[in-house]
Amino acid sequence: MTDLSRADLHVSVSDPVATSMNFLNEVAGRYPDAISLAAGRPYDGFYSVTDIARYQQSYVDHLRAGGLDEAAVRRLLLQYGRTNGQLGALIARMLEVDEGIVVPPAAVMVTSGCQEAMVVVLRSLCAGPDDVVLVADPCYVGLTGAARILGVEVVPVPEGPGGLDPRTVADVAQRVRASGKRPRALYLVPNFSNPSGVSLPVPTRRLLLDTAAEQDLLLLEDDPYGLFGLDDEPRPTLKSLDTDGRVLYLGSFAKSVFPGARVGFLVADQAVVDEQGRRTLLAEEMSAVKSMLTVNTSPIAQAVIGGVLVESGGSLRAANRDKIAFYRTNLRTLLAALEEHFPGAGRGVRWNVPSGGFFAVVDVPFRADEKLLELSAEQFGVLWTPMSFFYADGGHHALRLSCSYLEAAEIAEGVRRLSRLVAEHA
Amino acid sequence: MTDLSRADLHVSVSDPVATSMNFLNEVAGRYPDAISLAAGRPYDGFYSVTDIARYQQSYVDHLRAGGLDEAAVRRLLLQYGRTNGQLGALIARMLEVDEGIVVPPAAVMVTSGCQEAMVVVLRSLCAGPDDVVLVADPCYVGLTGAARILGVEVVPVPEGPGGLDPRTVADVAQRVRASGKRPRALYLVPNFSNPSGVSLPVPTRRLLLDTAAEQDLLLLEDDPYGLFGLDDEPRPTLKSLDTDGRVLYLGSFAKSVFPGARVGFLVADQAVVDEQGRRTLLAEEMSAVKSMLTVNTSPIAQAVIGGVLVESGGSLRAANRDKIAFYRTNLRTLLAALEEHFPGAGRGVRWNVPSGGFFAVVDVPFRADEKLLELSAEQFGVLWTPMSFFYADGGHHALRLSCSYLEAAEIAEGVRRLSRLVAEHA
Repeated sequence: MTDLSRADLHVSVSDPVATSMNFLNEVAGRYPDAISLAAGRPYDGFYSVTDIARYQQSYVDHLRAGGLDEAAVRRLLLQYGRTNGQLGALIARMLEVDEGIVVPPAAVMVTSGCQEAMVVVLRSLCAGPDDVVLVADPCYVGLTGAARILGVEVVPVPEGPGGLDPRTVADVAQRVRASGKRPRALYLVPNFSNPSGVSLPVPTRRLLLDTAAEQDLLLLEDDPYGLFGLDDEPRPTLKSLDTDGRVLYLGSFAKSVFPGARVGFLVADQAVVDEQGRRTLLAEEMSAVKSMLTVNTSPIAQAVIGGVLVESGGSLRAANRDKIAFYRTNLRTLLAALEEHFPGAGRGVRWNVPSGGFFAVVDVPFRADEKLLELSAEQFGVLWTPMSFFYADGGHHALRLSCSYLEAAEIAEGVRRLSRLVAEHA
Repeated sequence: MTDLSRADLHVSVSDPVATSMNFLNEVAGRYPDAISLAAGRPYDGFYSVTDIARYQQSYVDHLRAGGLDEAAVRRLLLQYGRTNGQLGALIARMLEVDEGIVVPPAAVMVTSGCQEAMVVVLRSLCAGPDDVVLVADPCYVGLTGAARILGVEVVPVPEGPGGLDPRTVADVAQRVRASGKRPRALYLVPNFSNPSGVSLPVPTRRLLLDTAAEQDLLLLEDDPYGLFGLDDEPRPTLKSLDTDGRVLYLGSFAKSVFPGARVGFLVADQAVVDEQGRRTLLAEEMSAVKSMLTVNTSPIAQAVIGGVLVESGGSLRAANRDKIAFYRTNLRTLLAALEEHFPGAGRGVRWNVPSGGFFAVVDVPFRADEKLLELSAEQFGVLWTPMSFFYADGGHHALRLSCSYLEAAEIAEGVRRLSRLVAEHA
């Protein structure tokens, strides 16, 4: 039999993040009674299996109400379909209602989860080895993983407690350019970032848009958590503030609906100009890339999300009222438990206080590595994520706590268990 | 507003195949009354929209019968899931029943259509710029498009009327190796290939396996049409004949079920050995790549295919009896119509006689290019695909006819219209 050598496979097969995540899942599997403050997945009690068929039916009814006959509906759901998907109009309406983002439906590409949107965007924009992407550091691992698959170089930009500093972005962009490369885009999660929980203040958003224009950077705005603020204060997306066509917006339904649909999207309303001066929309140009990744996103999955959008009257924010309340309770519980168990930031433990989202970061006075994680699961019954998983290099004394998958009582108990780990190690 | 230059985007955005296919779709849109012998999509009268919910329910019932409780079923369908999918056991059973391929479920990766399987396989196997993939020439455009996205070099191997000649494969592999590169794998469609309709005789399959061993090549066997032979003669897959672990098998449900599921799969049961001598299955190693493309294939879509496999008792061949009969009628109609309208291969028109599948190739004594295609649609009301779309360089006097999407009477009428085009141009 032919054996293959691991060293002979592409570097992305041995992706350190995949290895880390596998380790985490494996530890979670070995200690099933451990409370997981590691899992960043959404709570799964909001839906039941019967909702799938109902949403699909709502979407089919919507298509029929739009005048499609039986054969046309069948073709839309069962055949090969338009590469960029069939939810462009519904998503464009939702973006206008919920976010004040006004784009034509043709600027929307429906993708097989937001992960595919990242691959499409990176592949389309980075034309050669000199095109690099700046990323907030720490960074969501899906972006760096997508870049690794494509061989796109990633340059970290350190994130501070107030998010990215536009001056630091400019400095890094200039340094990249001075090295002979092209800083093509900057990836960031402006609202309640994964992993850091940090948000970009609104004035900083405007400054960052100015910096993008000055440095000729595109901004890749990833916004999976934007609905889930602790308060109702408006947090305008970069895309809604963008008057210069600098922002590509990446969207997910994994948290606002459920992950099993695997439906995400991207918005790219920039004009692309060819040698003859013909103008097309960037999202339409990118369809050539999408078609060679997955042909088109499953219309059966699109129908589920379509049904949700139809039933909610176009506002995902309205449809998410219960979830927003749930995640607020969870984050408040997490922060209160940290206050309770580490009063006055005792024992050298400090954490940030995110204004929403699923995550907070705790700094600890010891090395928070895989070895400690395993010990934490075994002896203290609590799981968390080493922040070093998310850094190019760093985060060795910090851990990410997630509060999305659990109910409040479990979160409180998880933090109590964490405090016992800390007591033993600080 | 920021305009982007097309020349500044990645080459895969301007993929010539995507451009060609767009042209074809655009022409089809402008001449809606033209009969399309170009569309290679399956006929879409086999299913109705209500089948979706029924199949999903059958799969859910199957999960419950297996002992899963409500929360576990909900989690499987609505949450993030296992990267390689949840249909491994059902697909492994189907492969054993239908194809005599015996592999463990863990060697199966469920993908977002077979297109993603191609991306995963090419990315995983091609470690660097010196790893090249040989392809049958003419070649399915999805494979060359996937390679272009990843920057993987493709080397064509000319296909003859009897398919690939293993000696030619060996010659090309040696030439590649002599140039300092590594011929990593050979991609082919052994049964009723797209675009050529050609099949590899069984003795040649054995010789090709020997060649693969001699040349240290992996074989990427793509088999979307295998069920649709004109007769019941067994056509063993390369994978079922493979005793040396040379074959990775790529599967699709787009033709045997329907394209809208966007569910495909790959089989990779080779062992991967790391520096410490640990052995894992190649499909499991590849999950790191899949996770960075689409995380996992929509379980809602997987449930549809799962339901089909459950309802069919594990045999897709049995479940496809009606489709097999339909496509046989169609291909026979196509071949008979060619006989009727071009008797004795009149007017310099020749065609091959495939033993199954969706396609045949017609050689014509004039240039069959995009200009002629447009004229054919406008003046003669018939569409076909220039074979040059599928060649690295060539095929300028040949066209591909598809007989999968139409009913028999339309096929006959399409060929009659084609004969009028030929009469005017030959």
